[in-house]
Amino acid sequence: MSRFWSDFVHSLEPYVPGEQPRGHNLVKLNTNENPYGPSPKVLEAIRMATTERLRLYPVPDGGPLKQAIADYHKVPAESVFVGNGSDEVLAHVFNAFFKHEKPVLFPDITYSFYPVYCQLYEIDSILVPLNADFAIDITDYEQDNGGIILPNPNAPTGCLLSLDDIRRLVETNRDTVVVIDEAYIDFGGETAIPLTQRFPNLLVTQTLSKSRSLAGMRIGFAVGHPELIEALIRIKDSFNSYPLDSLAIAAGVAAYQDESYFKQCQQQVITEREWLTLSLTELGFEVLPSAANFVFVRHRQHDAAILAMGLREKGVIVRHFNKPRIDQFLRISIGNHAENQLLMSQLDLLV
Amino acid sequence: MSRFWSDFVHSLEPYVPGEQPRGHNLVKLNTNENPYGPSPKVLEAIRMATTERLRLYPVPDGGPLKQAIADYHKVPAESVFVGNGSDEVLAHVFNAFFKHEKPVLFPDITYSFYPVYCQLYEIDSILVPLNADFAIDITDYEQDNGGIILPNPNAPTGCLLSLDDIRRLVETNRDTVVVIDEAYIDFGGETAIPLTQRFPNLLVTQTLSKSRSLAGMRIGFAVGHPELIEALIRIKDSFNSYPLDSLAIAAGVAAYQDESYFKQCQQQVITEREWLTLSLTELGFEVLPSAANFVFVRHRQHDAAILAMGLREKGVIVRHFNKPRIDQFLRISIGNHAENQLLMSQLDLLV
Repeated sequence: MSRFWSDFVHSLEPYVPGEQPRGHNLVKLNTNENPYGPSPKVLEAIRMATTERLRLYPVPDGGPLKQAIADYHKVPAESVFVGNGSDEVLAHVFNAFFKHEKPVLFPDITYSFYPVYCQLYEIDSILVPLNADFAIDITDYEQDNGGIILPNPNAPTGCLLSLDDIRRLVETNRDTVVVIDEAYIDFGGETAIPLTQRFPNLLVTQTLSKSRSLAGMRIGFAVGHPELIEALIRIKDSFNSYPLDSLAIAAGVAAYQDESYFKQCQQQVITEREWLTLSLTELGFEVLPSAANFVFVRHRQHDAAILAMGLREKGVIVRHFNKPRIDQFLRISIGNHAENQLLMSQLDLLV
Repeated sequence: MSRFWSDFVHSLEPYVPGEQPRGHNLVKLNTNENPYGPSPKVLEAIRMATTERLRLYPVPDGGPLKQAIADYHKVPAESVFVGNGSDEVLAHVFNAFFKHEKPVLFPDITYSFYPVYCQLYEIDSILVPLNADFAIDITDYEQDNGGIILPNPNAPTGCLLSLDDIRRLVETNRDTVVVIDEAYIDFGGETAIPLTQRFPNLLVTQTLSKSRSLAGMRIGFAVGHPELIEALIRIKDSFNSYPLDSLAIAAGVAAYQDESYFKQCQQQVITEREWLTLSLTELGFEVLPSAANFVFVRHRQHDAAILAMGLREKGVIVRHFNKPRIDQFLRISIGNHAENQLLMSQLDLLV
């Protein structure tokens, strides 16, 4: 509390990211990072760009990265917006498209940054409950709204909507913007990016933090009709001219040039998820069907908070959300095989 | 224009940064970059941090960089806030401290991002005219306000206020926040950072883009009372959890560990500024007294826009602002000696 603050600052309840412990020998399965590092070509591209030219400002619009994303997804560069992580992109999205009289709709159980953006920009929202299976039912979104946003697959559940569902959602909601947050799409879903070329009210966001193993570089983007992109550019250019530094741009470009490495990591994560799902099920866990690089699980006999604490004592960090409906679940990021084995051996002692 | 946009987006007039041409053989004296590259130790620190660990999220609060800045300026880490360039820090500052009934005050001729932030956050402002010598008279700021912000030295004039002036400004304005934007302070001024430990309403911002030669890495920070810093953290954590990537944090930390390189570049820029000031004066230019890494100049016989165009044709880019009071001025960044010589030889042909 301070008389110097703008009024709205007093009521903000900021987002709390997963813990980022440093210098410890912990198995970190709490923030959905990729267990495999970025492509060696990405590391090489960063080293090549580490020159005296860092004294110069970056390309303001992240041009080369925008073009790389456009080429990869076969859309015009005018349909792409890049930002300092998809969190920044999403922040601009809420500001650009959801400040209307009518409330924005999103699931009751979803990325917990959405309600925080609503506070920051003073946007009304309606939380649409997931169904009994913790899945999104798109018919629940057929109501008056000032915009819709949902992750696909959803977080922290991992549950996927089909591309047909996304198309129906966009078709039945032509008057406001529908945002599909595809942070985890590469681990088992089909991207809606091609649909952005047919529907002027669809915006898709993605990140290079997860499937491209670049959480440390903060790169996110949005794809949509150039009219939507223009709103994001206007806000970005009223906020920070150069949100992506020169090394992030170089890293991002290189990430799209090593498709075989990407496919390989993607497949390894999927294989590990299947192994982990099976192993957890055998240990008496219910595992929601996941298309992401994490699983959302609960045990019928064991309290989630106690399990999380028990794992923590053994050096394994997973995420527990102390929230209605999901306080008996743990969200466990897919690690590499050694990490997943360690997790299972510790859980075996706890349940 | 689009029915999908939030209303305020239609009226935004974004900031236009200086041109960033790429792949050309241009002498770039238009965006106040440092003519000397970052410290070799900074480049080495970036290379060392370019590992598979980039798959992990950065430290959310930029901890090690915050600590390096705190140590360098001898303030507690709780007094420091770091962000993705000082533009992002300033954006949060306007949002955190200036959304009051009363208008924020800043000079009529100053960093042209300030009025853009006011638009973005719907903040009223009063532009306080510079005096006839294009200097800031702090007694002009003794009026009712919702906050004060000014660069020291001012941009694009380069004119410096003394630390006594800053102290008087803060002392006569105890009820609102006074922000001193010290982007260029290292080129000839004295920082007000020590004063932040005595005045709870003073916030000082700086950037590593200019004197630390790291424009390409986007690193800025603010120093002030922990109560002010808390407001910035609340907003940052409601916007983007990790604004600084892991390499920017590593680069920033290393920049503060090579004081001798910093001093050397600082001195070279000052020496070149003196040479350029003398040379331009000899050529009939009026040069405002500059404490920055640029000079603000006009020629009595030659139109500024025409001069800028003439230089551009010869491959030298300077900045011309087509704005009231300053449309006959050019802002020229201090280059290295070869660049400054080339500039002078081209101007010699034009005037």
